[in-house]
Amino acid sequence: MNSDEFILSILVNNEAGVLTRVSSLFSRRAFNIDSLSVGVTDDPKISRITIVARGDDHVKSQIILQLEKLHDVKKVELMPQTGTVMRELVLIKLNISQESRAGLMEAVSVFRAKVVDLTNDSVTLEITGERSKCNAFVEYLRAFGIAELCRTGLTAITRGPKTLKPDASV
Amino acid sequence: MNSDEFILSILVNNEAGVLTRVSSLFSRRAFNIDSLSVGVTDDPKISRITIVARGDDHVKSQIILQLEKLHDVKKVELMPQTGTVMRELVLIKLNISQESRAGLMEAVSVFRAKVVDLTNDSVTLEITGERSKCNAFVEYLRAFGIAELCRTGLTAITRGPKTLKPDASV
Repeated sequence: MNSDEFILSILVNNEAGVLTRVSSLFSRRAFNIDSLSVGVTDDPKISRITIVARGDDHVKSQIILQLEKLHDVKKVELMPQTGTVMRELVLIKLNISQESRAGLMEAVSVFRAKVVDLTNDSVTLEITGERSKCNAFVEYLRAFGIAELCRTGLTAITRGPKTLKPDASV
Repeated sequence: MNSDEFILSILVNNEAGVLTRVSSLFSRRAFNIDSLSVGVTDDPKISRITIVARGDDHVKSQIILQLEKLHDVKKVELMPQTGTVMRELVLIKLNISQESRAGLMEAVSVFRAKVVDLTNDSVTLEITGERSKCNAFVEYLRAFGIAELCRTGLTAITRGPKTLKPDASV
C-alpha cells in the first residue's frame, strides 16, 4: 500500500441513504475513494462498508470524526496496516486463442488463480488475495491483453479474536 | 437470487463524486442497495461499480435510464442471471476453542474455504463464490457462533468473449 493510504471499516444500519451520506462526506471534500465494498453482516440489520482512501493524518482524523457523527453510522474503525487480514477478488477476461494459453496457465498456477470461464476465444480468471498479489497478477497479464477487469474492492478484518461491534451508545 | 433482484455493472470516470451521484439516485427513491462494490478497471481512469438491488421491471428500467444520464457515467449494463459469472468474497471470524474445531474444518474442506488466520481462541475463514454458496457456508457456521463477518459484495462479468466497454459517444 502507499504510505498515505488508509482503510476504514464502518458499521452502518442497513438503510437506504447511509451509503450516500458516507460517500458524499468524501466527495464534498474532493477526496477520491480508491475502493469501496459494502454488504450485510451476520446481522441483517447491519451492513459493513470498507473504504480505501488516501490522505495525511489530519485528513484521516477529520474524516473519522465526521463519519462518526453521521446518522445510521454505528462504528468507524481505522484498520491497522499490520494485524489486519485484507482481501479482494478480481475477475479478468482475456480474449486469447488456445495456442497462446501455455504461459497464461503457468501464471494461473503460480498465482493460485482459478479459471472460471473458458471458450475458444476467451478465458476468464479469478484471483483473490492481498492487493499487492492481485496487482502483480494483473500486471503480468497485461502482456496477454486484458479485455475486461472487475474487482470487488478490499474487505478487511482484524487478526485474532478481537471483533468490531456497533457502539452500544449509538 | 430472489426473482426481483437485479445486478447492474456501471463504468464510470474514476473521479470523486460519481459514487455519491450513483448511490443517491437509489436513496432518493428509497431503494435499498443490497450490495455494492467498486474498484478501478485495467484503465486507471475508469472504475467499475457493481450493484445488487431489488425492484420490478419498471423500477429497473427507470434506474438504468437515470443512471445513463448521470455525469461521469460511461456505461450501464443489466447483467443477465444466466451467462454471467458472479463472485463475492466473505471473511468470517469464529471465536472457538481448539477442541470444537473438528466439524468446522470439515465444512472448510467441503465448501473449499480457506483458513486465513488462526489463534488459540479464534479462526478466520475466507470463502469465495456465487452468493448462494457463500450464504450456505455462513448459515452452516451459525451453529458455531459467528463473531464477525464482512463481505465484499458481488462483482460480475459476462461469460464468453463479449466485453463491457465505455460508450464511445459519452
